[in-house]
Amino acid sequence: MTKTTEATVVFTPSGKRGSFAQGTSVLDAARTLGVDLDSVCGGRGICGRCQIIVSSGDFAKFGITSRGDHLSPFGPAEKQYAEKRGLEEGRRLGCHSKILGDLVIDVPEESQVHRQVVRKRAEARAIEIDPLVRLYYIEVREPDMHDPTGDLERLKEALRDQWDVEVGAADLHALQSLQPALRKGDWTATAAVRGDGALIHVWPGFHDRAFGLAIDVGTTTVAAHLTDLASGEVTASVGAMNPQIRFGEDLMSRVSYIMMHPGGEVELIAEIRTAIDKLATEAAREAGIDADDILEITIVGNPVMHHLVLGINPVELGGAPFALAADGAQLVTARSLDIHAVNQGARVYTLPCVAGHVGADAAAVVLSEAPYQRDEMALIVDVGTNAEIVLGNRHRLMACSSPTGPAFEGAQITAGQRAAPGAIERVRIDPETLEPRFSVVGSKAWSDEDKFAKVAARTGVTGICGSGIIEVIAEMFLAGLLTTDGIIDGTLAGRTDRLVQQGRTWSYVLHRGEPEIVVTQTDIRAIQLAKAALYAGARLLMDRMEIETVDRVVLAGAFGTHIDPKYAMVLGMIPDCPLEHVQSAGNAAGTGARIALLNAGARAEIERVVRDIEKVETAVEPRFQEHFVEAMALPHKTAAYPNLATVVTLPEPQTAGPASDSGGRPRRRRRG
Amino acid sequence: MTKTTEATVVFTPSGKRGSFAQGTSVLDAARTLGVDLDSVCGGRGICGRCQIIVSSGDFAKFGITSRGDHLSPFGPAEKQYAEKRGLEEGRRLGCHSKILGDLVIDVPEESQVHRQVVRKRAEARAIEIDPLVRLYYIEVREPDMHDPTGDLERLKEALRDQWDVEVGAADLHALQSLQPALRKGDWTATAAVRGDGALIHVWPGFHDRAFGLAIDVGTTTVAAHLTDLASGEVTASVGAMNPQIRFGEDLMSRVSYIMMHPGGEVELIAEIRTAIDKLATEAAREAGIDADDILEITIVGNPVMHHLVLGINPVELGGAPFALAADGAQLVTARSLDIHAVNQGARVYTLPCVAGHVGADAAAVVLSEAPYQRDEMALIVDVGTNAEIVLGNRHRLMACSSPTGPAFEGAQITAGQRAAPGAIERVRIDPETLEPRFSVVGSKAWSDEDKFAKVAARTGVTGICGSGIIEVIAEMFLAGLLTTDGIIDGTLAGRTDRLVQQGRTWSYVLHRGEPEIVVTQTDIRAIQLAKAALYAGARLLMDRMEIETVDRVVLAGAFGTHIDPKYAMVLGMIPDCPLEHVQSAGNAAGTGARIALLNAGARAEIERVVRDIEKVETAVEPRFQEHFVEAMALPHKTAAYPNLATVVTLPEPQTAGPASDSGGRPRRRRRG
Repeated sequence: MTKTTEATVVFTPSGKRGSFAQGTSVLDAARTLGVDLDSVCGGRGICGRCQIIVSSGDFAKFGITSRGDHLSPFGPAEKQYAEKRGLEEGRRLGCHSKILGDLVIDVPEESQVHRQVVRKRAEARAIEIDPLVRLYYIEVREPDMHDPTGDLERLKEALRDQWDVEVGAADLHALQSLQPALRKGDWTATAAVRGDGALIHVWPGFHDRAFGLAIDVGTTTVAAHLTDLASGEVTASVGAMNPQIRFGEDLMSRVSYIMMHPGGEVELIAEIRTAIDKLATEAAREAGIDADDILEITIVGNPVMHHLVLGINPVELGGAPFALAADGAQLVTARSLDIHAVNQGARVYTLPCVAGHVGADAAAVVLSEAPYQRDEMALIVDVGTNAEIVLGNRHRLMACSSPTGPAFEGAQITAGQRAAPGAIERVRIDPETLEPRFSVVGSKAWSDEDKFAKVAARTGVTGICGSGIIEVIAEMFLAGLLTTDGIIDGTLAGRTDRLVQQGRTWSYVLHRGEPEIVVTQTDIRAIQLAKAALYAGARLLMDRMEIETVDRVVLAGAFGTHIDPKYAMVLGMIPDCPLEHVQSAGNAAGTGARIALLNAGARAEIERVVRDIEKVETAVEPRFQEHFVEAMALPHKTAAYPNLATVVTLPEPQTAGPASDSGGRPRRRRRG
Repeated sequence: MTKTTEATVVFTPSGKRGSFAQGTSVLDAARTLGVDLDSVCGGRGICGRCQIIVSSGDFAKFGITSRGDHLSPFGPAEKQYAEKRGLEEGRRLGCHSKILGDLVIDVPEESQVHRQVVRKRAEARAIEIDPLVRLYYIEVREPDMHDPTGDLERLKEALRDQWDVEVGAADLHALQSLQPALRKGDWTATAAVRGDGALIHVWPGFHDRAFGLAIDVGTTTVAAHLTDLASGEVTASVGAMNPQIRFGEDLMSRVSYIMMHPGGEVELIAEIRTAIDKLATEAAREAGIDADDILEITIVGNPVMHHLVLGINPVELGGAPFALAADGAQLVTARSLDIHAVNQGARVYTLPCVAGHVGADAAAVVLSEAPYQRDEMALIVDVGTNAEIVLGNRHRLMACSSPTGPAFEGAQITAGQRAAPGAIERVRIDPETLEPRFSVVGSKAWSDEDKFAKVAARTGVTGICGSGIIEVIAEMFLAGLLTTDGIIDGTLAGRTDRLVQQGRTWSYVLHRGEPEIVVTQTDIRAIQLAKAALYAGARLLMDRMEIETVDRVVLAGAFGTHIDPKYAMVLGMIPDCPLEHVQSAGNAAGTGARIALLNAGARAEIERVVRDIEKVETAVEPRFQEHFVEAMALPHKTAAYPNLATVVTLPEPQTAGPASDSGGRPRRRRRG
């Protein structure tokens, strides 16, 4: 080959470069150099995934000095693609544009297989797409009596020859549908092949839709996020109540149900699987796609939910030593979990569980927040009936769970309710008048504004949700209505008629209406117990880590999304930390599930990380009880909350007399 | 370590030797040397698989000169085992006998994992046991709150530490039953692990029963052989009619049914799978074992049966180019084939198909007869509605199928019937008197013997089965009743009243009774067409191989078992060969399935062999038609049957006049 027929090509952003014979297609050049340029159709001008841009400008820095139009003219295949599916100005199909001279070629983000998914929070872990399942368009040799190979063997040959992909076993259903598919596609087909070589589906002709479902199975709700496996985008998010609720609101009551009704796990397993199957149907319908296009599922959940989805009786999780059936990640077929509204070849990956009380949901949060990639010391808290707490950085990671009980979710609270329209979610109390104002879910109007009447007429004021109970108690404390011991100070009854006495304790009337909404001493005790458990868990890990402060606090989960970090700190739920470093991670468990859906390496990563997490069992740690008792008090001027003190005025330490302490003894034994 | 504490140990029959510290157990010594000494319990004196014998005699040849009692005395563990399960005189448990000095130790056949299964026919392939699934008894660490690993992870750890076995994924059902099993067994268990590392079942405590099913799915009958995976012995053989018969007697009528009733394959698939599931139940019941003890299944069958069992619509096999969905071996779960009466973790292995007309049953016959291991040129014929024909030796192997039609099975024959009591199966005709004598299925008595009356009274004489029709036509020919063209010679009517005329052709009355059993000219034509097809197929392969004679003829299948090789040759079904080299291989397909059940290496072996077989498609070979026409004649003095001529007196070539030829034109087009 003479020098005049060779051209130098540089790809950006990778910077990879090489010399190619004139007439080489850009796609072939990219493949030769290992440049990340996507293609599903294998260079046939069908899929449009290999779009590139010829860079203009001075390329002396790349050693390219000659200038001119060095790419073959826009040809008929590109024209046809542009007419049929649209092609942005300046974009070319890499497979149908030929190198005619020195060039700098830019591979835009969308044309990279391993592109990154854009995330809103800057501090969140980057998600790089590295799919578990890929689609390959192929042309298959027709059968020949003189060479009687099977259709599957000729399909494998096509994948080997046209894609350099080696298929191992074919799923049975893929084999069953193979012959009609090949004939319908006139010996062209698109094969879905997993990274491990399993052939899971064959479509006739060209097909380029591949989706996955990231599912977060909570005790109360189940959420499914339909995700485009090529772009990483969430196409549809759907949710439903966990139908197991009829067996008990919280985890332990469901486990108790099974203990008392041997074989009862079958019902709970069926309920949750049916719910997941329905969500899959709903997500596909909402996105307007075929169920067959859903090729992969990831599932996260607490250990009990994790076990039930996998069909494992969770009774061992109901008592010490809280033994998991398996802590590792599992990969099974969707069908084996009775999930039918997806491709028959779809697999389900469950993330690893950390420990008997720290589930695959916590693993997913860890994957999403990736504290193990950072130097800063992060405290990550996912509040549910149990709080799952993770502390650490790239050097060391530990986790525990703490029995907060359901108070943060509004349960066991006199006027408590779920976060639904009409539930009080924001509260302010005037420290002078001790009069409250509040807003309800579904509106931003405050109760002392004119427009609130309209809101109230629509939704009513029905109760207090989790974030509302946090705020009202914190505001009561800041307004001086509570002692640092959490006792409602009846001596203020002279200043406000909102304090009413019931036996030996006082209550605060937040809303006079039907129903009347009152915060009782018992409510405050319930929240104190919950927050003390949460704080004690965090503190226990900090002891182990031998640190006094953390650099960052991440509040994960629905509770973390709705709570105001300031009030969480006023209550002393979390240790002191600069308020701007207290963040809500939103649905981090769901995000972690989505990362595991999109990235094969992330699975290996979280499996390794979870193995290395130091697991701390609060139930057998004597210091947990000590921290718990200490944490019953509310943060005050002499407590270790310097950052908080810069934001709010913390009261002087004050404790109520022994007479008012009747309801306030820390219920240590009940929690242990 | 001083020299006095070391002992030299030689194991027979392997001849492996080593030096061991005194006090080493025989099992440990065997493991160190890689001696094939079995154990399921891992040296705990429970399973008794590691029995050994201390050899006596002069061991100078092994370099062992010191004599004396060099094994530890019979101890309590051995005594307990002997009392509980019996121990032959002189036998010791390798795990509980310790080396005290120089020894020669014999490992009896039964104590070897890789022992050979005894086979009756000397020429058959040796079967060495090399199981796909093995059982491992283990002691598992109890869970500990301070180290919250899952039960599965601790089970894996036990397998690694106690057996050096690395488990990959656990089957979902194994995971689901793991926790109760470990607790029931008080933290001892037996794990079934496949060679690929899949954990498929866990039993509480010690368990040493492992079985497999070798299944031969024929068009007419289905047979299942329950096989002990440790000894290789067949524990129960059960069979049933193929229930698909209601959709058509032969393959093509079933395929036609599906072609005419789209979706109808679902019914045929369900029928055969239900039949297999029932056979599994029946086999387990007959052997008195739990269904859970059946851990592996192999299935063979012709291509249509193979496809239907796998749930693949076989319509493509109904017309050119007869494309298989897949020709390779498949490994799927039993549950995916709706086989439930076995362990939930059981896998099904289907042997590879050779070509569109030459199925996994032919592959199994090849595996059983192993012509590829020998120098002699073997012709292997498996007769069914299609004859599957294999020719070759270690240097070259080829295969074809030939459309013999169902005549050999008694179909399309006037008095034809299945081989059931009352069916004529043996026939002799006196060449002088032209009088016949015969015997029927279920008795050895000949019809001219006194005791026959009793037989006839019991069963009746109801028809002629496949081997009977072969014999009566061959005997008619040898008695001069037929011309070499296969025409019944009416000129002999003067010598016997058994020849009766019907229109322009003659018939021979074999039995005067109710019903009257008659062999018609049409019957003879049907057999001629079938045998000509069979011979033409064999001849075609011989042409390709460029040989004129074969060294050995193997008749496989039920037909091959019942037919007298002499008469097969008198009819010219098979080429000439010394009669003592014509053998029945019995149920070679079933045996091949059993070999694939017992030996992992045999699977790789037959997959490789099948890939290398030269596939010959008779439908597109012009020479097949030529051979077919030539083969219509019966062997005679000038034909190439020198070996046959030494056994019977072959007639002079004689052809009938054109007038009697009306029914005898070779139906070439119908067969092509």
